[in-house]
Order: sequence, then C-alpha cells, then structure tokens
Amino acid sequence: MKIQSVRGTRDFYPDEMALRNWLFEQWRAASRRAGFVEVDGPVLEPLDLYTEKSGPEIAEQLYWLTDKGGRELALRPEFTPTLARMIAARQAALPTPIRWFNISRCFRYERAQRGRLREFFQWNVDLIGVEGEIADAECISLAVDGLKAVGLGPEDVEIRVSDRRLLSALVQTYVGVSEDLVPSVFAILDKRDKVPAEALAGMLDEAGLGNEERSRLERVLTFRDLGELDAIGSVQTPAESLKRLFGLLADYGIADWCRFDIGIVRGLAYYTGPVWEVYDRKGEFRAIFGGGRYDRLLGDVGGQSMPACGFACGDAVLGLLLKERGLGPPEGSETDYYVAAWNPDWPKVLQMVRHLRSRGKRVQFDLKGGKINRQSKNAISSGARFVVVIGDKEAPWPKVLVRDLRQGTVSQPMEYRKVGDEGQ
Amino acid sequence: MKIQSVRGTRDFYPDEMALRNWLFEQWRAASRRAGFVEVDGPVLEPLDLYTEKSGPEIAEQLYWLTDKGGRELALRPEFTPTLARMIAARQAALPTPIRWFNISRCFRYERAQRGRLREFFQWNVDLIGVEGEIADAECISLAVDGLKAVGLGPEDVEIRVSDRRLLSALVQTYVGVSEDLVPSVFAILDKRDKVPAEALAGMLDEAGLGNEERSRLERVLTFRDLGELDAIGSVQTPAESLKRLFGLLADYGIADWCRFDIGIVRGLAYYTGPVWEVYDRKGEFRAIFGGGRYDRLLGDVGGQSMPACGFACGDAVLGLLLKERGLGPPEGSETDYYVAAWNPDWPKVLQMVRHLRSRGKRVQFDLKGGKINRQSKNAISSGARFVVVIGDKEAPWPKVLVRDLRQGTVSQPMEYRKVGDEGQ
Repeated sequence: MKIQSVRGTRDFYPDEMALRNWLFEQWRAASRRAGFVEVDGPVLEPLDLYTEKSGPEIAEQLYWLTDKGGRELALRPEFTPTLARMIAARQAALPTPIRWFNISRCFRYERAQRGRLREFFQWNVDLIGVEGEIADAECISLAVDGLKAVGLGPEDVEIRVSDRRLLSALVQTYVGVSEDLVPSVFAILDKRDKVPAEALAGMLDEAGLGNEERSRLERVLTFRDLGELDAIGSVQTPAESLKRLFGLLADYGIADWCRFDIGIVRGLAYYTGPVWEVYDRKGEFRAIFGGGRYDRLLGDVGGQSMPACGFACGDAVLGLLLKERGLGPPEGSETDYYVAAWNPDWPKVLQMVRHLRSRGKRVQFDLKGGKINRQSKNAISSGARFVVVIGDKEAPWPKVLVRDLRQGTVSQPMEYRKVGDEGQ
Repeated sequence: MKIQSVRGTRDFYPDEMALRNWLFEQWRAASRRAGFVEVDGPVLEPLDLYTEKSGPEIAEQLYWLTDKGGRELALRPEFTPTLARMIAARQAALPTPIRWFNISRCFRYERAQRGRLREFFQWNVDLIGVEGEIADAECISLAVDGLKAVGLGPEDVEIRVSDRRLLSALVQTYVGVSEDLVPSVFAILDKRDKVPAEALAGMLDEAGLGNEERSRLERVLTFRDLGELDAIGSVQTPAESLKRLFGLLADYGIADWCRFDIGIVRGLAYYTGPVWEVYDRKGEFRAIFGGGRYDRLLGDVGGQSMPACGFACGDAVLGLLLKERGLGPPEGSETDYYVAAWNPDWPKVLQMVRHLRSRGKRVQFDLKGGKINRQSKNAISSGARFVVVIGDKEAPWPKVLVRDLRQGTVSQPMEYRKVGDEGQ
C-alpha cells in the first residue's frame, strides 16, 4: 500500500532541506543584525483567534477541527494573531520597543498552485511600541537586508511603498467618497492586478462610485511622485509623513530599492499606516511579500492598543524567484573525514572515528565493512576531503595515513591522535 | 476578548526560544558529526499513513480532520511513517546507507501532563540499509553524543539495552510461551513500570500464562548479565548478537553509559531487534527517549523491506531534566553595538547603523529618539558590549567615540567607518 503525500504540502529531501535551512539562516542572521529576537507559538490555536477578527468566513480558508471536548482548533494561517495573543498575555512585563521575529510553519486551505502552498513557512518581523516613521523604515531596511542576504539586489526586486492614510485622504477629499465607503474601495483596489479593468469599474460602480468619482480615482492611481500631491492641500499631513519615511529610507541607503506606489493597499484589513510590497522587477511573479503598520491589532485581540509595524515573508514565491535566479546555499560537503581500513577492524576504526568526532569533525566510515576499494569509492561519493587509512603497511597502528582528496596528497605516517588539524 | 492558548501547547517567548534553538543546534551538530543529513516532511499527512499500520484505534490519539473533499488528514504524531513514505517514493534512487535526521514538530492528542505535551518537538535519527550491530551501535553513539552536547554525562543518565529477539527466544524456549502469544506478552511487559505487580500478573494470566510460566518469566526479568544466558543453549544466537553490540559500544568508548536490561521492550510494535531506552539515573523521570531496529517497517508502508534502525528523542522530558540540572545555552547578549547620539540626527545614526550591520554586527539604537541619558540606559539594558557615541564635542562627525561597557574604557575619536573591529 503506497500512500501519497497531501496536496499542497512538501517533502524536504536533503537538497530541499539544505535550501530551507540556508534560507532560514539568512532570515535569522538578518533579523539578529537588526536587533530582533526570535519567538514562536503553537501551530494549533483556538479557531476563535482568527474568526473573532476576520469573521466566521475565514474558517473556509483554514484547516480546523473539533476536539473531543467540542473545542474548535485551527492550524495557524499566519503568525500575527499568535503574536498579538502572546503580547496581550504579558503586556505589562514586556519592555518596549518589542523587536520580535519568528519563522513559522503555517497552513492555508486554498487552491494549491504555483507559489501558493497549503503548508508553507513564513518569516515574521514585528516592531511594537514605536509610532514614528523610523519604525517602518527599520522594518523595510530589515526586509532589504534579508533580500540581500539571499543574493537579490535592487536590480532584481523593488519595494513599492504607500500609506493607507494618504490614499484614504485622497479617496475622501479628492475623489469625493464618504469615509464609510473607504474600506470597500480599498478591498476593490487590492484586486486591481488580478481582475480586468471593466470588472474593476463594475465593482466600484456597485460600491456606489459614480462616473466622475471613478475617473478621479483613476487619476489618483496615476500619481507617480509625491510632489504631485503638493497641490492637494487636504492630504498634506499623510503626504508629509510618507515623505519623511522616504527620507529615512534614503538615510538607510536603500532608496534605490524603494519607490512610491499609491496603488499599494494590502489585502488585510488591519493595516493603519504605511504599507509596502516587494515585487520582482521583471514582473514574473505576484507580490513576493509585504508589510505595514497595524496600530489597532493588539487592542483588538484583548491587549492594550500599541503602535506596531512589521512584515511577513513566505517561502513559496521567494523560493521560485531564487530558483529562477539560480540562488541558493553555497556548494558544500556533508563530510570532513572518511575513515577507511585495509582490514575491517572495528576497535581501531571506531577509536579513529571517536577521536575525530570529539574534535567536532563530521566523520563517515563503511558501516557495511566492505573491501578497501569499495571504501575508497564511498569516500569519494561521501564528499569527504580527507580519508584516514588504517592498516597500511607503511603506517602500522596506532599510526595512520591521511589522504587529501582535494590536493591529491598523502601524509607521512602519523599517530592517529594527531589527525584532525588538516585543512585548517 | 482575551483568547487562551490550547492546552498542551507552548508559547516560546525569547528565553524559551533561545533554549529551543540551542537544543536544536546541539542535535543538528551531533547528527552532522556522525555524517547524518537533515530532512523533513509535512505536518499534515493522510490519516491512512498511521491507521494502516497501527489500526483505526490510533486515530483516537491523533489530531485529525476531514477536508472539503472528504479526505481524512492527520497532524503527524511522529516522523517515522513520513520517513518511510519518503523513502518508498524514491527508494530506487537513494544510495544506501541512508543516514537521515530530522527535527520535527509533532502532535498527540493525549492527556497533557508533566513531560507529556500535545504539541512537541522530536529529534529523529534513522540509519537505513545496514544489517549488522554496527548500525545499532552507531545510532546509540549518536544518542550519547547528543546527550553529551547538552551537558549530560554517564553519571546523569544510562542507556538500557536489550534485543527483542533475545527476549522472544527466552519467552518461547525458557518460559514456554507459544510464538503467537509473544506480542501480547511484550505489550504487557512494556507496562511493567506503570502498573502494580498484581495488575501485571493478572494481565499475564488473562493472556494465557499459567503460574509456572509467570514465575519463569519473573526469573527471566531478574537476569542482570548476559553471562547468565550462557547456560540457555536455545538463545545463543540472539545473545551472541547482543554481546557483539556491547563490544562495539565499548569500542565507541561509551560502555559506561550503557547496561543490559532484559526488561526493555519498547511500546511500538515495529521493532525487530536491538531496543534501548535512556533513563535518568536518579529515576525521577520516565524514559527520556529510546530507539531500536525496525527491519520490516519500510516494507509495510509500501516500499521494499530494508534493514533500519534509529531513535526519536522528544524535547519535553529531556527539557525537564535539563531544567532540573540547570543546563542550557550559555549566557549571551542579543546585541553587539548600541548607537547613541547627543542630538537625534537620523542621517548620521542610520549611516553608523548601516555600516555596522553591513559588517555583520547586531546593532540597536533608540527608535524613539530619546535624550542621551535614556539612550545610555537602553544601551545597558540591550546587553550591548559597545556603545558608539555620535555628536560628542571631542569627536565631531564623521568621527565618533566607542565606549566598551565591559572594560569601562572609551576610545580616542575615530572615523565612523573604522568602527567594527572592537572585541575581535
């Protein structure tokens, strides 16, 4: 009976695992350079944690189950609600700013397709307790550092930055839409790249926007430069804030990675300020990841309201981009030494193995006790740089020979306890 | 609305996460020294993967759900079935021996109690394709290396080793139980530490063992030394194999960690040869972890039969033992440099921050742009060893001062781009 894996999940054989470990290490190292510390929570969370905020419809997109006690449990679709729960539980004791990152396995019950998996990983970064644009800039700077760390540059990707407060002010004062309609206009605009123009116009019409409002909205979406807003007095406060943010991004030395894009709104309802998304410049993929400011979320899950911003970067779309660009971990071997013996002789072989492993070396030997020729073959395919030869006539135990497979050299006979400094 | 986490799951705040990361790094490093490579699979697996082998009852102890297509999916309770599925899928292409390790998040729907969680982590090690005792010894040696790496020694823990073939031969030829009863006798013996002696006798009686057989079985369980078996001719083959295993454990230099214990059977039905469990010497905890040989498992999940052995070590009981012994990651700071400025001046601060981060340093600064006194306080609580001071009268930009908080010294004014070699 052969059992298949679940659609939208992945098996990580050694090569795929090496790539995943490398990616996670880049994320960890970038996060730590920026002074963030790692946290994590459960995969299994109360379903309420998601439905309370997003409504019961969200359950359709989650994996969830009812346990024997009748409790509804969900597999986390993202980390932010867990983070908010963890902070709310210890809010009084945690000094701000809170700088947390997390690499979490998440689950979404969506149609599995290219770049969209049902089980995936996410790098989460959250900076909590700082109001100013500097916090948003710090997060974007960390996102750039993470992209750099995996080998991407400003010629590969760009970060499109906007501010919901700016778009909201424009939609109200320039387009002439009432405040209560803003959320539905945002939801429609977030679909802009996914549906044809006529469909979009239809949706806006249905939301209550007349012809004139729709054409003013179209005009808004053509703004390419923050300077174009100088003439619109009613949006100066959010426009000034966004200018300060771009100034800080220049101070971080990452201006060439970033550009203003009024059309960035982000799908999730909880964003309250700057929002941004990373795209590949060739336009081959949908948004790679994004983030923004969400000052009300902590209050909404039962804690005190606190200013907060951050981002979440999945491994699926980024993984496709890295693959396409041929980026990944440097070639490396899993083995430092291979211990071979002319006559299978476990006490000596194991003494040699022990000695090298106790010195931190990665050591293999022929567990099947084969002939020396077979051992030599295995040594090469193991990727070991050095082969220790036990039982050579020239080097009677406790002496051994050490072959350097890279240099093609053989050592003088040496005492086995002296082996281990090669290649340092 | 305050939402609680699910019982039997854990939140990992920075301290708990640092401990978890440290533990995983010890496991990874030990595995790699022994030449094992990391793999992983999904958390979400078909429920069949577990029920086909263990019967439908196992679903009672799992978290599982039915998806919209009517498919039954389970959260993995252990990694071995996934491993067997992954190997079966690529068996022809994988060169043997296969040396895989894995650190997986697993789920069991059991009563949550001390050392028993519903969501936990497991270090899995599997060595596939080698029949001889050397493979079992290699796995036990790696288990010991993992224990050593976290600071435990042979005075803290012992590994109790037996062989199911030996106990099976003794139960049949010495106790006089028929072969078909052996599995139920094993299942009862595995409960030996958990139920009172009378209850055990009752269970054996029910399984069909008479008084005389029960007392011979009791005699078997008093064997402390493999030499005691020399007189029982019918068990020489498995006894010799177990002696060879102990000989190899001595060659590995770990004889003082290991002792023969005929009473070790392991709960899982799939073991076919040597079996072993790790206990703390004080007897405060149940088995910390264990492993053994399972030569038939791969055939049972639809692949070709292959000799295989390994172990799985959960983080819950081990975590309790480490806590009790005060073992854990070395004290360390999350921050190398704190950048402070007399006059909040983002362009200079961020230039300094960028410079240090681009050199791989972990850098913090005051995102709230506070006064210099507040920055000094934050620098100390950040754990940074060095504070870079921008805007001191003695060191006008692009010069700065560097305070070494550990040594209590201050540098001469220096060009900001020269900072970063301190403490090397």
